[in-house]
Amino acid sequence: MECANQELEYPQKLLNYMNGFLISKTMFAACELGVFDVLQEGAGPLSSSAVAECLGTSADGMERLLSACVGLQLLEVREHQGEALYSNTDLSRVYLTKTSPKTLHHSIAYYSQTIYHCFSYVTDAIREGKSQYLRAFGVSSDEIFEAIYKSEEEMLRFMQLMNSTWNICGKDVVTAFDLSAFTNIFDLGGCSGAIAKECVSAYPHSRVTIYDLPKVLEMARKHFVPQDEKRILFHEGDFFKDPIPEADLYILARIVHDWSQDKCVELLTKVHKACKPGGGVLLIEALLNEDRRGPLTAQLYSLNMLVQTEGKERMASEYANLLELAGFTDVQVQRTGKIYDAILGRK
Amino acid sequence: MECANQELEYPQKLLNYMNGFLISKTMFAACELGVFDVLQEGAGPLSSSAVAECLGTSADGMERLLSACVGLQLLEVREHQGEALYSNTDLSRVYLTKTSPKTLHHSIAYYSQTIYHCFSYVTDAIREGKSQYLRAFGVSSDEIFEAIYKSEEEMLRFMQLMNSTWNICGKDVVTAFDLSAFTNIFDLGGCSGAIAKECVSAYPHSRVTIYDLPKVLEMARKHFVPQDEKRILFHEGDFFKDPIPEADLYILARIVHDWSQDKCVELLTKVHKACKPGGGVLLIEALLNEDRRGPLTAQLYSLNMLVQTEGKERMASEYANLLELAGFTDVQVQRTGKIYDAILGRK
Repeated sequence: MECANQELEYPQKLLNYMNGFLISKTMFAACELGVFDVLQEGAGPLSSSAVAECLGTSADGMERLLSACVGLQLLEVREHQGEALYSNTDLSRVYLTKTSPKTLHHSIAYYSQTIYHCFSYVTDAIREGKSQYLRAFGVSSDEIFEAIYKSEEEMLRFMQLMNSTWNICGKDVVTAFDLSAFTNIFDLGGCSGAIAKECVSAYPHSRVTIYDLPKVLEMARKHFVPQDEKRILFHEGDFFKDPIPEADLYILARIVHDWSQDKCVELLTKVHKACKPGGGVLLIEALLNEDRRGPLTAQLYSLNMLVQTEGKERMASEYANLLELAGFTDVQVQRTGKIYDAILGRK
Repeated sequence: MECANQELEYPQKLLNYMNGFLISKTMFAACELGVFDVLQEGAGPLSSSAVAECLGTSADGMERLLSACVGLQLLEVREHQGEALYSNTDLSRVYLTKTSPKTLHHSIAYYSQTIYHCFSYVTDAIREGKSQYLRAFGVSSDEIFEAIYKSEEEMLRFMQLMNSTWNICGKDVVTAFDLSAFTNIFDLGGCSGAIAKECVSAYPHSRVTIYDLPKVLEMARKHFVPQDEKRILFHEGDFFKDPIPEADLYILARIVHDWSQDKCVELLTKVHKACKPGGGVLLIEALLNEDRRGPLTAQLYSLNMLVQTEGKERMASEYANLLELAGFTDVQVQRTGKIYDAILGRK
């Protein structure tokens, strides 16, 4: 009660929410300018003026940025002969430098450049109940992936986003269930191949075919999947229009959440028909709780799905229902404790 | 150590920072659409479809918004006959409904519509070391308040922002020092008069003159200061160009942070000359810690000052230095524990 009164006296929580975008954009700016990279490459801690000089920015702006990064615990600072010297925290070194294997750099670039702008129209999206690509970027959103892939550069950035997410959640989602019984796996909308790589790493006897649009596969081959990885194959197609070959297991990672109920049932029914008897389908999605009270991340993502796609985030029971409508049975759900969870259906 | 390792395993903090703008914009959208008002006016909790109908939005979009507001603890939800019914929390009722005396609605509108967009250019601001009004709004920023007041509507919104902030911090900053010895007070750049109102309320024998541009005072009279408040007076002027009359105390609330070192010294020297012997000057600002490691809010605001003005946030010692350069002595600092603190100098 005292706590509640204190909150009513001074709305710290609301002030934090108001500052949320300042925090996001401060971290994004430090990434985009290459602050964490320059601090990692240096022989030791650097002054803000040295960082500014390396990166060709104003000294004053860089000083404010580094100071805010200290406040965000993204940088450490120590005083040396009256000068503040900055260095990366372990967290920044691992996740915010561009060349780290676990880098979130590409997710951040996409968040900063595409989603931040698109999400400025969330009020319009709620009012109209539809994607805001037209308003945000002047691109029609009738075909959502034509809008999302509005240029080759933007397609690459989207693929890097997808790839980057699986740096932190990929292993968890492919090992949420024991998939070792499935050898011939199709990853529908497999994009950059990050999930395929996680699969062949976790299940060395599996063979994973990335099924995606020709232009996406061209990029995947060029930028993401090593040529000598013989366990990863490619199959060109639009899963709504083209045939889906037979396989033991189909993975749909962040695919179903892009589409309306009708399109999901259409797609999953097609998958069910193609699926080998005894086979299965694995959905990977950010699950909403059954009581719809959380998790906050999935709730926010669901609003973003409204702004960017024709889909939404769903509860486990909704995914189970979609799978059952498509003919799958024995649906099981595994939560990972991270953003993305796994739902397995069997034929 | 275990904690640090866990953080390295899964960068929850960074993911929260990435989601910061989604959180801000979700709360902003709920305010802008009038969700909290409609829930307050209703006879009881409402379903999302009822709220959507009242506000003329899509049912689907509103359901996602209300669900995310539950995740943010801005709304409460309960199940009634299989339907989710939403109501305001106390916090939302007090701070997010438009007609509440403590409403943050106007701050939120300005954050959502002006600062969110302007701050999308923070990377450019850091690179160039200057305001981004030109890039963000096509308005030259040579005269910052011509840019900030780029239309009458925008000026009113800015004044409402200023007014709204003092709803939550105004009393603290005017009572941080005992100002009862000062009767003739000038509030330089006094804007909507919110600080003037707090002053005459805390010090019933004081008389506060709002000194600001003619067009600002016109708005202040029209929208903010009751005509029957005889203790609040008005004085038209540009404090850089026009004379500043003699007074016992000058208040500069969030004024010094808009300007460069040189302009601050110029302005404060002029104030010192005008000041009655024995009088004083009260600066109200968001203070940076002396070690520059926080508070985060002031660090973020300092980046925003870069994006929007030619000023910055400063440490108490920097303000003391400015005051002393201008001739003031006996500088004292009072922290309030909220966003804005107080610095008093004497002549």
